[in-house]
Amino acid sequence: MISDSTNVPKYYQISRQIIATIRSGRLKPGMQISSENEIIKHYGVSNTTARRSLQEIERSGWGIRIKGRGTFVSRRNVQRSATRILGFTGNMIEAGYSPSTKVLDTRKVTKGYSGLINGRRYVMPGPVYKIHRLRFADDTPMMLEVRYISIEFCPDIEKRDFAGSLYEIYQEHYGLSLVEIRQTLSTVMIDAGTQRFFDVREPICAFRVEGVTFCGKEMILEMEDSIYRGDKYRFSVCAKP
Amino acid sequence: MISDSTNVPKYYQISRQIIATIRSGRLKPGMQISSENEIIKHYGVSNTTARRSLQEIERSGWGIRIKGRGTFVSRRNVQRSATRILGFTGNMIEAGYSPSTKVLDTRKVTKGYSGLINGRRYVMPGPVYKIHRLRFADDTPMMLEVRYISIEFCPDIEKRDFAGSLYEIYQEHYGLSLVEIRQTLSTVMIDAGTQRFFDVREPICAFRVEGVTFCGKEMILEMEDSIYRGDKYRFSVCAKP
Repeated sequence: MISDSTNVPKYYQISRQIIATIRSGRLKPGMQISSENEIIKHYGVSNTTARRSLQEIERSGWGIRIKGRGTFVSRRNVQRSATRILGFTGNMIEAGYSPSTKVLDTRKVTKGYSGLINGRRYVMPGPVYKIHRLRFADDTPMMLEVRYISIEFCPDIEKRDFAGSLYEIYQEHYGLSLVEIRQTLSTVMIDAGTQRFFDVREPICAFRVEGVTFCGKEMILEMEDSIYRGDKYRFSVCAKP
Repeated sequence: MISDSTNVPKYYQISRQIIATIRSGRLKPGMQISSENEIIKHYGVSNTTARRSLQEIERSGWGIRIKGRGTFVSRRNVQRSATRILGFTGNMIEAGYSPSTKVLDTRKVTKGYSGLINGRRYVMPGPVYKIHRLRFADDTPMMLEVRYISIEFCPDIEKRDFAGSLYEIYQEHYGLSLVEIRQTLSTVMIDAGTQRFFDVREPICAFRVEGVTFCGKEMILEMEDSIYRGDKYRFSVCAKP
C-alpha cells in the first residue's frame, strides 16, 4: 500500500516495497524489475515518481539500470561512505537490510592498544575494553569487527549490551559525540580461519579497516581493526581541493 | 649533507637521505633504521629533529616503529588519500618514489562512456578520449589506469604527451581546475590477464577505483576505472559529522 498520509515520499515507499520483494527472494539477481510504465500503472503515480523509485533502488545498490533495457536486480552489494560518520547499524538500515550482531568475545586488555593509522601511531594506554563481533545484514555475515574502547571515557562499558550500535551506547550512556574518524583501508585475502565466519569456501578479497575515533580534540574514544568482505562492500569517497 | 641554507627543514632532509638508502636497496625490508641517538650523533641535530626524522619516515610508509625496539624498514606500501585531490604523480613524489608511465593505448570512443558511481549514473556523451596507462613507482608497476576524457573541455587532447600527469595537462593547456572527485572503491582479485602487467605470478587482491572528476558544477571533465594493486596501496580516509 502506498500511503498519502505519512511523511514518507511515495517514490521511497515504492522503492522499499520492490526491495522487500527482492529481499524475500521472489526477485533474484539478474531478474528484471518493474519498468517505469508498469510502476505508473500499478501504483497510480506520475512518471517522475516512478523514475525516482527506480533511481532509489539503484542508489541503494539493489538494482542496476541498463540503458534501453530496464532495471535489473544486482548482486547484493552494500555501499559505505568513507567520509560520513555512520555506523554499521545505520548503514544497513539505509541500505534496506535488517542488521544483527553476534558477540564473539569481550575482554579487558590491560596493556592497552596502539595502531598505525594514516602514517601516525595512535596509543590507547591500558586498560581498554576489547569487543570482537560478527555483524550481519539479514542473515548474511558482512563484517568481522574488533574494537578497543576507552574505559576512561566509558566506565562500566562491560555492563552494556553489545548486540547493537556502540555509537548509540556512547551517546546514550556516556553523552559522548563522535567528532572525527580516521581510517586506513587496505586489502587482504581472507584466509581459511576467517572464511568460516563468512561462510565461504574459497579465498575472497576483503577490505581491512583500521581506524581511530575521537570524541573531542585528541581524545581517543575507540580504535578498530575490522574485515569487511570485499564481495559485499563498496566504499564511496569524495575529494575536494 | 644537511643544509642550513635551504628552506627545507632538517628533519625532512634527514628523512629523505635515509629513504634514499632504503630505495637504493642498501637497507632492506625488516632491517633496522638508525636510532634517534645515532641520528643525533651522525647529523649533529637535536633529539626533537632526530625524532621527527623517524616519524617522517614512518609517515611516508618506509618505516615502522616498534615500541622499545626501534624503527624498521617496512614492506613498500604507498598511502593514498581518498579525500584529497592528488594525482598519481604527486602522490608518488610525496611518498619518495620516482613516478613513470607507460601508455598502453589511446583512442577516441565515439559512443561515449557512462558509469555508476556511489549509486548514481554519470554519462559522458561521445566522443570521449580513452587513455589506458600503466603507472610505475621507481620500476614497480603500481596502477593500471583507464581514463575517459571530455573532448568538449579538452579539444585536441590527442596531441598531448601522456607520459605524465593529466591533471597538469588540464591545468596548463586548458586552464581547468578540478573542483570535486567522486569515487567508488571496491576489491577485485587480479586475474591472469592483469597479473602480467603487475609482474606477479599468483592472484592478489586489488582496489578497483571508479570515479568521476568535475571541473565545475555538473561539468564532467573525466571518468576513470582503474586497478590499484592491493599489496602496495592503502587508502586513508577521514570522516566528520
